[in-house]
Amino acid sequence: MSWVYAFDLFGTLVFAISGVLTAVEKKFDLVGAAIIGFVTALGGGTIRDLLLGRTPVGWLKDIHYLLVILVAVLLCFLFRVHIQKLRKSMFFFDSLGIGLFSIMGTQIGLSFGISTPYAILLGIVSAVFGGVLRDVLTNEIPLIFRKEIYATACLAGAVCYVGLGYISPFEQIHMIVSMGLVFLIRYLSVRHDWSLPFKTIH
Amino acid sequence: MSWVYAFDLFGTLVFAISGVLTAVEKKFDLVGAAIIGFVTALGGGTIRDLLLGRTPVGWLKDIHYLLVILVAVLLCFLFRVHIQKLRKSMFFFDSLGIGLFSIMGTQIGLSFGISTPYAILLGIVSAVFGGVLRDVLTNEIPLIFRKEIYATACLAGAVCYVGLGYISPFEQIHMIVSMGLVFLIRYLSVRHDWSLPFKTIH
Amino acid sequence: MSWVYAFDLFGTLVFAISGVLTAVEKKFDLVGAAIIGFVTALGGGTIRDLLLGRTPVGWLKDIHYLLVILVAVLLCFLFRVHIQKLRKSMFFFDSLGIGLFSIMGTQIGLSFGISTPYAILLGIVSAVFGGVLRDVLTNEIPLIFRKEIYATACLAGAVCYVGLGYISPFEQIHMIVSMGLVFLIRYLSVRHDWSLPFKTIH
Repeated sequence: MSWVYAFDLFGTLVFAISGVLTAVEKKFDLVGAAIIGFVTALGGGTIRDLLLGRTPVGWLKDIHYLLVILVAVLLCFLFRVHIQKLRKSMFFFDSLGIGLFSIMGTQIGLSFGISTPYAILLGIVSAVFGGVLRDVLTNEIPLIFRKEIYATACLAGAVCYVGLGYISPFEQIHMIVSMGLVFLIRYLSVRHDWSLPFKTIH
Repeated sequence: MSWVYAFDLFGTLVFAISGVLTAVEKKFDLVGAAIIGFVTALGGGTIRDLLLGRTPVGWLKDIHYLLVILVAVLLCFLFRVHIQKLRKSMFFFDSLGIGLFSIMGTQIGLSFGISTPYAILLGIVSAVFGGVLRDVLTNEIPLIFRKEIYATACLAGAVCYVGLGYISPFEQIHMIVSMGLVFLIRYLSVRHDWSLPFKTIH
Repeated sequence: MSWVYAFDLFGTLVFAISGVLTAVEKKFDLVGAAIIGFVTALGGGTIRDLLLGRTPVGWLKDIHYLLVILVAVLLCFLFRVHIQKLRKSMFFFDSLGIGLFSIMGTQIGLSFGISTPYAILLGIVSAVFGGVLRDVLTNEIPLIFRKEIYATACLAGAVCYVGLGYISPFEQIHMIVSMGLVFLIRYLSVRHDWSLPFKTIH
């Protein structure tokens, strides 16, 4: 099992936990919470696959994703309060997750012959639309559109990854550096409460 | 015309009526109500087809579905008050509908070579995501995630259907038994106000 | 560049501006506003393409659409107040946009061998679901389902376009006449505050 695959499953776990916790707060029932966890974790990649015509969509061919979602439900069932206390530090894992998802999404787009700007866009979609679907299904305005440098961090990471591809052949190092960049931007923006409001001139 | 197809059109009619009634309550206009009816009735199967890469999606090849939606709009136009009074007993038809949709969705998943757990998941998606889309489009938190054993009944029915396939060759009987199970669970849970809240240990 | 393509990009620009302005009102950040602009402009055609199995979806093969979205973001950044003052007259451009999108969507449906009624439905989906997604992502009840003859105008235009095809060979004239009809219906319904409420008999 490659480290990328291991990381992908780990990102899936973290996203699924975030979905289940949101669903529990909204008083969803057990199956509802599991569905929200599923959609949060796999929704972004699903939309990317659909836009590309990559069907059956990726996770339908790999039972591990379903198992990871069930583990997330079980962890929330057993250790909900502990996990909620961890939530602030969970942004650490979450940032690793979106970093990886942005870069994998970009890679997959490029491998389908999509032009670089759209491949980067697909990377961002992969990373952020799971959370967007979670917020839509729980009737919230998607948070990631409003605060903290979230989609922007994904954009920076994906651009970095593509840029490094032009100047060096070490694919794996590009991934690590780009994920590090996403993480750094997220860390600094949460710590210093950065945002990028849409301030218009007139 | 097979009884499965007849039942499928009937389930479509019941779901479309539920969508149109919701839209009328929200003061949607005529075409808006028709669109909500359409999405409620065919949204779940559409998502299943998209995930599988079964395109054009099923209903696009069969004009009867569109006719059934128009009949639903017409019935709501002519007999709205009567239908609303019937709404409680409509859960009877609704439960038959989700029973059939869960099982047909599972069958279609299996016929695409999807592993059994994901085929069952696709069955649940077929049955419940039409109602989820209806609630999202009318700006409600999806009801089915919150109360009455709804998705859970679909899960039980789909598992029952797959299980019977291992021990007996009588396909049609499996369908009837599994739909009966979905109906029974729904009936008991509505009658006794059952729910499956996500109670966590810590 | 054909006039249809030019018009398509122009419709994309107008829809993107409408999305960005809505996002700015909702205090979305810069990237969030750009994503809403993107979804509003290209969401309807994307859903049409997905239902048909036309993947990668159309815009993924043409970088001009992305450029147009970025121009829309830039225009809103530079001239937001002026554009908002223009908003009432923007319904003029918007109506041209939905007219074109309905007819192009119908054409694409027919070219995929879809029966005429569903091709017309795909035309309506192309024209209105971008706005529906915008409203869902900003947590509003989709406006177009509730007021002003909006989807209905698209329906009339698409029916007119298909009907003309039976009696005359002049494709381009059919498009112009049908777009004119959509525009006329929208103009009259906004001016005279027309609506088509779902008034039921009983």
